[in-house]
Amino acid sequence: MLKRFVVAFCVFIVTFTGLAQAQASTTIDGMEQLAWEEIAPGIWSAQVGEAEASTFRDLAAAKPRMEGLAKMGAAEFPFDKNDTMGQVINGTRTSVRLPLGLDEQVYGLGMQFRNMNRRGEVYHLRTDHYGGILGRTHAPTPFYVTNDGYGVLFNTTKWISFYPGVGNRKDSTLPPRKDRTTEAGWQAVPTSDAVEASANTTGMEVIVFAGPTPLDVVRRYNLYFGGGPLVPRWGLGFWHRVPTAASDESVTAEVDEFAKRDFPLDVIGLEPGWQSKAYPCSFDWSPVRFPDPKNFVSSMTDRNLKVNLWVNPYISPDSTIFEAMRPYTGSHTVWLGEVPDYTIPEARKILTDHHKKNHLDIGVSGYKIDEVDGIDNWLWPDHATFPSGTSAEDMRQTYGSRMQQTITEMFHEKNTRTYGLVRGSNGGASAYPFAIYSDYYNHKGFVTALCNASLSGVLWTPEIRSAGTDKEWVLRMQTVCFSPMAMLNAWASGLKPWSREEVDTEIREAMKWRVRFLPYLYTAFAKYHFEGTPPFRAMVLEPGYIANSNDEAGVLDGEKNPYAEAVRKDVTDQYMMGDSILVAPFFSGDRRRNVVLPQGNWYDFYTGKLVGNGEVIEIPFYLKQIPLFVKEGGIIPLLKDDANNTSAWQDGVALEVRHYGSEGGSTSLYDDDGTTFDYEKDAYSWYDLSVAKTDNGTFATSVNKSSGTYRKTFGKVEWKFMTR
Amino acid sequence: MLKRFVVAFCVFIVTFTGLAQAQASTTIDGMEQLAWEEIAPGIWSAQVGEAEASTFRDLAAAKPRMEGLAKMGAAEFPFDKNDTMGQVINGTRTSVRLPLGLDEQVYGLGMQFRNMNRRGEVYHLRTDHYGGILGRTHAPTPFYVTNDGYGVLFNTTKWISFYPGVGNRKDSTLPPRKDRTTEAGWQAVPTSDAVEASANTTGMEVIVFAGPTPLDVVRRYNLYFGGGPLVPRWGLGFWHRVPTAASDESVTAEVDEFAKRDFPLDVIGLEPGWQSKAYPCSFDWSPVRFPDPKNFVSSMTDRNLKVNLWVNPYISPDSTIFEAMRPYTGSHTVWLGEVPDYTIPEARKILTDHHKKNHLDIGVSGYKIDEVDGIDNWLWPDHATFPSGTSAEDMRQTYGSRMQQTITEMFHEKNTRTYGLVRGSNGGASAYPFAIYSDYYNHKGFVTALCNASLSGVLWTPEIRSAGTDKEWVLRMQTVCFSPMAMLNAWASGLKPWSREEVDTEIREAMKWRVRFLPYLYTAFAKYHFEGTPPFRAMVLEPGYIANSNDEAGVLDGEKNPYAEAVRKDVTDQYMMGDSILVAPFFSGDRRRNVVLPQGNWYDFYTGKLVGNGEVIEIPFYLKQIPLFVKEGGIIPLLKDDANNTSAWQDGVALEVRHYGSEGGSTSLYDDDGTTFDYEKDAYSWYDLSVAKTDNGTFATSVNKSSGTYRKTFGKVEWKFMTR
Repeated sequence: MLKRFVVAFCVFIVTFTGLAQAQASTTIDGMEQLAWEEIAPGIWSAQVGEAEASTFRDLAAAKPRMEGLAKMGAAEFPFDKNDTMGQVINGTRTSVRLPLGLDEQVYGLGMQFRNMNRRGEVYHLRTDHYGGILGRTHAPTPFYVTNDGYGVLFNTTKWISFYPGVGNRKDSTLPPRKDRTTEAGWQAVPTSDAVEASANTTGMEVIVFAGPTPLDVVRRYNLYFGGGPLVPRWGLGFWHRVPTAASDESVTAEVDEFAKRDFPLDVIGLEPGWQSKAYPCSFDWSPVRFPDPKNFVSSMTDRNLKVNLWVNPYISPDSTIFEAMRPYTGSHTVWLGEVPDYTIPEARKILTDHHKKNHLDIGVSGYKIDEVDGIDNWLWPDHATFPSGTSAEDMRQTYGSRMQQTITEMFHEKNTRTYGLVRGSNGGASAYPFAIYSDYYNHKGFVTALCNASLSGVLWTPEIRSAGTDKEWVLRMQTVCFSPMAMLNAWASGLKPWSREEVDTEIREAMKWRVRFLPYLYTAFAKYHFEGTPPFRAMVLEPGYIANSNDEAGVLDGEKNPYAEAVRKDVTDQYMMGDSILVAPFFSGDRRRNVVLPQGNWYDFYTGKLVGNGEVIEIPFYLKQIPLFVKEGGIIPLLKDDANNTSAWQDGVALEVRHYGSEGGSTSLYDDDGTTFDYEKDAYSWYDLSVAKTDNGTFATSVNKSSGTYRKTFGKVEWKFMTR
Repeated sequence: MLKRFVVAFCVFIVTFTGLAQAQASTTIDGMEQLAWEEIAPGIWSAQVGEAEASTFRDLAAAKPRMEGLAKMGAAEFPFDKNDTMGQVINGTRTSVRLPLGLDEQVYGLGMQFRNMNRRGEVYHLRTDHYGGILGRTHAPTPFYVTNDGYGVLFNTTKWISFYPGVGNRKDSTLPPRKDRTTEAGWQAVPTSDAVEASANTTGMEVIVFAGPTPLDVVRRYNLYFGGGPLVPRWGLGFWHRVPTAASDESVTAEVDEFAKRDFPLDVIGLEPGWQSKAYPCSFDWSPVRFPDPKNFVSSMTDRNLKVNLWVNPYISPDSTIFEAMRPYTGSHTVWLGEVPDYTIPEARKILTDHHKKNHLDIGVSGYKIDEVDGIDNWLWPDHATFPSGTSAEDMRQTYGSRMQQTITEMFHEKNTRTYGLVRGSNGGASAYPFAIYSDYYNHKGFVTALCNASLSGVLWTPEIRSAGTDKEWVLRMQTVCFSPMAMLNAWASGLKPWSREEVDTEIREAMKWRVRFLPYLYTAFAKYHFEGTPPFRAMVLEPGYIANSNDEAGVLDGEKNPYAEAVRKDVTDQYMMGDSILVAPFFSGDRRRNVVLPQGNWYDFYTGKLVGNGEVIEIPFYLKQIPLFVKEGGIIPLLKDDANNTSAWQDGVALEVRHYGSEGGSTSLYDDDGTTFDYEKDAYSWYDLSVAKTDNGTFATSVNKSSGTYRKTFGKVEWKFMTR
């Protein structure tokens, strides 16, 4: 699987202009060989046709983290350059063809809710809500990673169509033909030896990211776009969104109830009704429901709670900035609100001036940016025009990214970190501190999305909104508490964590674990930022995990399967959290489940017992806790004591550090002030937490600062050896 | 509803160049007013941007039937010309905006399987199989008809996106804004006053068809594209398709079983295995299964049976025409077969020379053209190239039309009519003698498709393939026997009409009615050809039918309906057949059903009893026959005697002519040789069948030739007054 392990330590610079290219050759229908240029260590670019005016590079939050990339070192170009082709057809459509091994598996292509392996399906990538149409999704990132240890980004903001392992050119080496009437093994989608992609554009850049492992590919991709977001520490506490028509009084009563009932809470989210008008939006506080917003936010701050505000981009004539914004809006309305063109600096300034004054300056911590993805019949049409001349297509593919960019820069100027939600994103967005969410609500699909998000440089929250049964309520809460953002979204249901009394205990336990995991999770986000490693990851990114699609052969059925197509059986229901933990949630209806363990010994998180080694185990259903498994030598730093708010992490906080297995090991612990961007000026520290086996068979532990200048905030470290 | 009833009898000619147009005006974002030119009576054209190289006009089977159009007379332009706008955006995307009344209902947009009224949804029209993706379907005709009595064709073969009543421009008159948090009546899709549409192209022609009634609109559209096909008489008998690996012996045994068991049969369809190789195809007879094709087809002809051959376009290297075709194939394979570019005359000639020699000359009657619609992951990709320079997009939108054109012309040269099946079609295809079919298999959806087909100039067969229960088996058989093509497609199942013994009687009765209806149905197809009236029609085309969408208000549900969207409740489960009959099939699970009766009295076909007048009636379930209702004064010519084959219509055939109701009436009966194109040289006859009330209250009947030169073929006419 990992053919090309090349380690090198030379440091590249971003302007490195690469190797001499072979003379371009041409195929029978005029495709030309691509010319590759290395633009960073293990990252190459090729341009087909004209350079596009705007790319994902312009939409990124930060410059490439060259230091992190340099540490990863150089690598060989991962496939045969002679077998890479491009073409601009009739001056209107650009296509690219790259080689693909016959058994290679293709992952990524954005926030997908079905399957992992994309091979054999066609994806027309388009920003959209999730309605089940292949390729249309909240983050249609045109980036794929293969199990052969490399990745490719098509750096275009156009609608792009992907054919991973689909479609054979007549000048390719074709697989054997079978007569469908008489021969077994006829394929509805014949095996192909290429990934092809195309879009209606006069040119396109293609960027290749080397491994050697799939995780290294993702790390290079993330680092190239600035590294993942280091979210504020409070962002890793529990979030709760109140009903849409809530008022300052009802919200205050609700948050006090959390404290009274002993449930964790860090962030309170206000839904549309915080505004004077919504759908379209005023962005101004409702004088009826929030007559004194400054006092309200301040009272939340006093409780160590952050306030997050729902918005969508569509401006009401009742907004105080409507008249100022009008010259910068597009031809069509959305919900009868005008649509700002945020490619224009003046439009961004009108918005951020308003938000700073009315929201940030009184303590608002961030936003939930809704409906930047689009459902066709409420969004602008594909022929809408915008004052900047940006096409409706480009605008739709990038609106969420531009909103994230605008909000992120606004907070950065105040040297205050934010964490929020967004419903539309795309390539290059790795560094934005936003989690994606959806109206879609299938629990298994939510977990699949969590896995796929990690392959596309975005974060995803499988938010809990409601449940049909007590059991489902607990299982969904467990999942979201072990995800990038732990949130109950009660905008429509008005539910509270304690709404189902019978399972109060299990719900409280899941939420409290969220807070106890803070040292481990915060470190995982720091690694996302500095090293590009996603804090929550698909199993295919885990070394020692053997990814098999295990497609089931199709059975001919004149009504249900007339082409006898195979049924994909990817493992999509388990994932990695941080360095060492495998999460395998249960779903409603489960009586047991399989867990696929990568190579090495794995231990039950709660008991420390060995559960298996590089095998598929079956575990019986239990409701009390979400199943967690720790790899051999895993070291897990937790808060020593239960807490309901992440402010429990303060100077002198006691840690419990768990060790699993019979071998030594080490991990890192990250620390900084948790709220500002001072870490960009080196105001952070890394600690090594190590366990070494001594000569007499006992374990020796150590905690050593390895780098950084930030003061030590944690106090006593209590080691707990779970496997004895 | 019908505001603009204008009758005029002046005869237009196709080169009429129209009226002086008002000076173009411009909207805020650069849309320009359209300039309309009348190109035929009640038909106008406007061009936005550049003229496209190929349009639906080039794909039509025949020239406009100017005689039929002249008879319809002139009409006023149906909406405000000043309110029609177009634009080419950035030189890449062309958009059009036309006015739409606030309560106007929009029908059509091709072979759709859901709903009738298209208002409020976005359709990205694209040729495809039916996978439930809005706008993707076997015949994505960009033509709509409104209940205000006009229609519009966007005469482009590009992928086009339609926004019927969706999307408000900011310079439109907007409906009242509502605050979603506090006000009732907020709309997820705000009412709009326009139809907008757009495609990636540098220009587009728009064609408007006047009414005054919706049926007149459809008639003008069909006549403009040559009128509907006058199918051969045998095409209206029963069709049976045999299992894919059938041989001459097994087919012969099977057809003899039809005769032995007294089941009707006119056409036998051979599936892929008749060929030496299939998927990809050789188009050559299998030497194993059909060693003597000439003798086989001849033996079928002796039995008065026609032979129809399944094909798809993708050529196997094993085909005898493979090497000849190679220079004319596209860049990509489909199922490893090469894809001929039939825009090239040489490619068409290679195919038709082969087919004439090997199929037509030995008596083959037609084809089933499969898989010209496409499923993305087996068709050519959107960047495939073709030797003619035709784009992959244009090729996909028109492949089915070009195949129909090629086959139709081939039969026309032999002065032999054909009737076949095709899985992809599009605008302008009215005159092609092909019924569309689908792998999709929902019975209700099949009936909805039958209705929608009539709004887009195509024919549809709700073929029966299998059924879960005896009851469903009968109900599906009844439906298909009252459709444009009565066919059992047993390619995968191997079923026969008698496969479910318990319901042999009901199945036989439905099939025998099909044959008895031959005079009525053949006349309906003649009217399709000469007058443009579809033989099977949506209720919205019936005068006196009040079409209400009756959308149900949506209920907010955080998981299932977060935008509280309305649920569409169109009537899609009944349709008109010929002049006077309303068909209201039952569906599995029905215990009763509603039937919406247009204005006037309606009578039960079987009993002659009055059932209602312009009202919704409820009928209890019965299995014996499909519910049929006849309008006041309806006259229905049938074969007098049961028959199993349409060859029963021969010189001297006895007719039974039924009359329904208490009023007189009249209808037409068409006659010709049933198989050749001699009718194009006036070798046909029309008869008036009339019933008049006499002074003493009895009925007087008459049968008079009204036009034409063909000999009278029918013999005795037995009148039957059903309502007594």
